[in-house]
Amino acid sequence: MSALDAIMGAAEGGTLYGIGVGPGDASLMTLRAAGLIRTVDTLAYFAKAGNKSNARQVAAPLIEPGRKEMPLYYPVTTELPVAHPGYKSQIRDFYAEAAASIAERLRAGESVGLLAEGDPFFYGSFMHMWRRLAADYAVEVVPGVTGFSGCSARAGAPLTWGDDVLTVLPGTLDEAVLARRLSDADAAVIMKIGRNMAKVRRAITAANLIERAIYVERGSMAGERVAPLAEVFDETAPYFSMILIPGQGRRL
Amino acid sequence: MSALDAIMGAAEGGTLYGIGVGPGDASLMTLRAAGLIRTVDTLAYFAKAGNKSNARQVAAPLIEPGRKEMPLYYPVTTELPVAHPGYKSQIRDFYAEAAASIAERLRAGESVGLLAEGDPFFYGSFMHMWRRLAADYAVEVVPGVTGFSGCSARAGAPLTWGDDVLTVLPGTLDEAVLARRLSDADAAVIMKIGRNMAKVRRAITAANLIERAIYVERGSMAGERVAPLAEVFDETAPYFSMILIPGQGRRL
Repeated sequence: MSALDAIMGAAEGGTLYGIGVGPGDASLMTLRAAGLIRTVDTLAYFAKAGNKSNARQVAAPLIEPGRKEMPLYYPVTTELPVAHPGYKSQIRDFYAEAAASIAERLRAGESVGLLAEGDPFFYGSFMHMWRRLAADYAVEVVPGVTGFSGCSARAGAPLTWGDDVLTVLPGTLDEAVLARRLSDADAAVIMKIGRNMAKVRRAITAANLIERAIYVERGSMAGERVAPLAEVFDETAPYFSMILIPGQGRRL
Repeated sequence: MSALDAIMGAAEGGTLYGIGVGPGDASLMTLRAAGLIRTVDTLAYFAKAGNKSNARQVAAPLIEPGRKEMPLYYPVTTELPVAHPGYKSQIRDFYAEAAASIAERLRAGESVGLLAEGDPFFYGSFMHMWRRLAADYAVEVVPGVTGFSGCSARAGAPLTWGDDVLTVLPGTLDEAVLARRLSDADAAVIMKIGRNMAKVRRAITAANLIERAIYVERGSMAGERVAPLAEVFDETAPYFSMILIPGQGRRL
């Protein structure tokens, strides 16, 4: 066994792995993630019904033919607002069923790797499985490179210097909240842009940060786009997009 | 060549690589980092004079015997306060010399990999080299798993849920600033603890967050320690330590 194989390790039966696959480029997966993707009994992943799983697409170059897979299709994603009671109950039922399916395999002695974009404990759906299963089953969380680290590297934009405070904001927040938080930020990352693009842009403008903001779409993936936000006039953004406001802290 | 070798890739002459080595466990390096550590002509790293480089220790299992190395020893680290004029001028001279040494190798057609703990563009010293060299030389930044992702995985503490805002704070900030920022945080990470431990603890207490705070020392490394901050009474903390305040956002 090579030094590399020893470091990557292998999956153990009966264990659930939350595998962060990083920001998009397959080479930005960790060695541990690669070792597990190649050895778990079953690879599971969430996906929007009718769509391919984003996390699976990142991991695809390491998935061997014939591997057992367990796609978990959301009954609803952005069709209903999160505040809608129907959204909550449908998603809860779905997560409970998904956890039960995973638990069944774990009890049968299988290892299950649940793929997560970026880092599993950073806004990841994996946390909803972890919450339901970690008390009763062996679970290993494999941290991953976050989308914002991937995007700042691709944009050539160092994110935080010296004593900079970093604020990470979901674009789903109210415009006034976003503007207030941004006004107080040294450096910022705005995630979950999508249909919130126009609102987020207004909040950034209100906070006087438009000249420092960088828009990154599909960072580190095919079809990547990096542009000053001041030159981006799109009303919506795709799923893989974020806005970076690099810090201006101590240069030495 | 295996699928894995193809994904990891190799270094190209004349290029500077800023290589994030992740939070500490060698298996949490990315495939790209591993590919570069094994193929760059020279491995460079910063270290405190008289000490081993932390980043080099993380990467050590992949460094082959006889590899060319370029240790870059800080003339001063925590002996002088950052605000001291002697600190700034000594560090600036040092960074200028380090950049010149790297540039010399790049001009000779060598590839140089500068190892960085965590992610190079997230509070990394690499940024001081990038600032001096990126305009004139080919540079690739390899993002890494941040310390906070590594620590939250090890602590079994999902960091951000739903619409949580995450605030990342250097422990070097003033106590009042820390307390104010923490009072406004949904989830928080406090880095650069070290000799700021007692002050950071007071700020967390003032913000009424002591019961939610988790102390992580040497997360994912040998000698790891995870404990509720309320049960940690140390006046100082080692270099590899941080405090996590996990978010309480939407559970589904």
